[in-house]
Amino acid sequence: MGTVDVEGLADAVRSADRRALGQAITLVESAHADDDGPAGHLLALLAPCAGRSIRLGISGVPGVGKSTFIEALGNHIIDAGHRVAVLAVDPSSAVSGGSILGDKTRMETLSRRAEAFIRPSPAGGTLGGVARHTRETMLLTEAAGFDVVIVETVGVGQSETAVAAMTDMFLLLLLPGGGDELQGIKRGIVELADLIIVNKADGDLEPAARRAALDYRNALRLLRPRDARWPVPVELCSALTGTGIARIWEIIGEWRQAFTDSGALQARRAAQAREWLRGETADRLLAALRDDAALARRLDELEEAVAAGRLAPRAAAAEIVAHFCARGNSP
Amino acid sequence: MGTVDVEGLADAVRSADRRALGQAITLVESAHADDDGPAGHLLALLAPCAGRSIRLGISGVPGVGKSTFIEALGNHIIDAGHRVAVLAVDPSSAVSGGSILGDKTRMETLSRRAEAFIRPSPAGGTLGGVARHTRETMLLTEAAGFDVVIVETVGVGQSETAVAAMTDMFLLLLLPGGGDELQGIKRGIVELADLIIVNKADGDLEPAARRAALDYRNALRLLRPRDARWPVPVELCSALTGTGIARIWEIIGEWRQAFTDSGALQARRAAQAREWLRGETADRLLAALRDDAALARRLDELEEAVAAGRLAPRAAAAEIVAHFCARGNSP
Repeated sequence: MGTVDVEGLADAVRSADRRALGQAITLVESAHADDDGPAGHLLALLAPCAGRSIRLGISGVPGVGKSTFIEALGNHIIDAGHRVAVLAVDPSSAVSGGSILGDKTRMETLSRRAEAFIRPSPAGGTLGGVARHTRETMLLTEAAGFDVVIVETVGVGQSETAVAAMTDMFLLLLLPGGGDELQGIKRGIVELADLIIVNKADGDLEPAARRAALDYRNALRLLRPRDARWPVPVELCSALTGTGIARIWEIIGEWRQAFTDSGALQARRAAQAREWLRGETADRLLAALRDDAALARRLDELEEAVAAGRLAPRAAAAEIVAHFCARGNSP
Repeated sequence: MGTVDVEGLADAVRSADRRALGQAITLVESAHADDDGPAGHLLALLAPCAGRSIRLGISGVPGVGKSTFIEALGNHIIDAGHRVAVLAVDPSSAVSGGSILGDKTRMETLSRRAEAFIRPSPAGGTLGGVARHTRETMLLTEAAGFDVVIVETVGVGQSETAVAAMTDMFLLLLLPGGGDELQGIKRGIVELADLIIVNKADGDLEPAARRAALDYRNALRLLRPRDARWPVPVELCSALTGTGIARIWEIIGEWRQAFTDSGALQARRAAQAREWLRGETADRLLAALRDDAALARRLDELEEAVAAGRLAPRAAAAEIVAHFCARGNSP
């Protein structure tokens, strides 16, 4: 991005300048080595202003009406006096070309509001990379004064776990199918949920939605809740008509109060931050290893041997790390 | 495990000594630092004898009949002259106490056969740890002459992705529900599949199973196959009566031939091995960092600052890695 006035950019983000926020996100998403220093500096300046939002993760199978739900909830939250950022984690967006939230018209009324900021999933590469960028973007939107951050996931592979690992409260949207449906949803995903919402509880589907909610409540008794002190509520909702949206925002408030009072929210965030730091550190150690030309060559050789099945990864990893740790300070 | 005659143990594993194989698996699963050297040595000795099996990953929702299917397929494969190892990846086994494959009676006839080796999921900790142990156990069973390795996953969170990343061919078992059911299965999981099997195609459920297979075939047209040269087959099967099992083993053979001829199998394994090495190396670099008392202290401080939201992980990671790389050789 060339030379950046990082201090100026940080000030502009803090004053909720949308253009600056976009520029800041582009900087932290940049893959250029030159941008790493300024991006780190920017994040260091803004980190103390971040963290004051409630972070909501939202998942659900395709067709459950996630966009309509986020639009309805987002508008309701803004009407209640808040500012809402909507981010996405979609590691498949690079492969398939399309991206959730790529098309802002999906959330037409929300995207037009000054109190909303909608950002599509960062493109490219691994879930780890996409998740890291989304985490950093979350900090930036918080520093810009958005006090509710919604992170949407398409539910491809491991992305729910990644989103649950970066948000405070995880909302799972389900369709008004029968109890059979819960079988199709991965048990592990259901166990991540702090709130389950049966969407499309309107018109002809309303009786089915009521039955489904009952079934889900029964099924949930068999699963351990994510936090023993919070029995996971199952709520009916129609994102289309708006029914249930106000109650869901109330429950989010009750959740926040309960988890703040018990210290569980702070504990969850602290554990997430530690895990994030661990991942960042590992990535940077690997990069540092690759920066050493001799080690990089040896790593390539070991990779070949491992790929050909001549060597087990454990021995190869032990050797390369021993080399790395034994090297001197000389360049 | 005390002092181990690693060379002797390797010889015994190579001669298909079941007791030695069990001992070898316990050694590589050991968390004791003293066992790391011998385990690495053992794997280095046995790696050249590994890799000659076909590695099958099998997933499906609870209730789909995975055990019955694996038992039917395993018996069929043994009757065809092979030796079958069945492993499992179940990161939840430590939490919930129960474990898939924990109860061998689940696969009663298979577990009694001399040509079968059934090992429950390693207990404990993260999916990464469980997956690493299962990978190493796979190498050991291969060195012991098992030429078909089946890795089962319960499908908790990210475990399908982990299993697909350690096997050659991924089989997804589905129930004879309607087309709606595919909606409940994560699209990302379906995209991992090389073969889709509608189980329970027997008795009253047979017509439903036929319809479901049609629906799945139609739905699959909308998804990209894992490999463009292999349109994913959808097969009917009754693990209970054995119908379809022979055809599934034929398809596995056809898949193997096609992927070997095209070089895609070798490429998939090489990419998997590189990724595995990368993960091992990262884990060991982090451990080496923690071994340095001063760095470990600083890391704790940075973790606190990150956990409290005073510092962004990017800056903290950059600092700690810079310290690590700048340190001298002196102890």
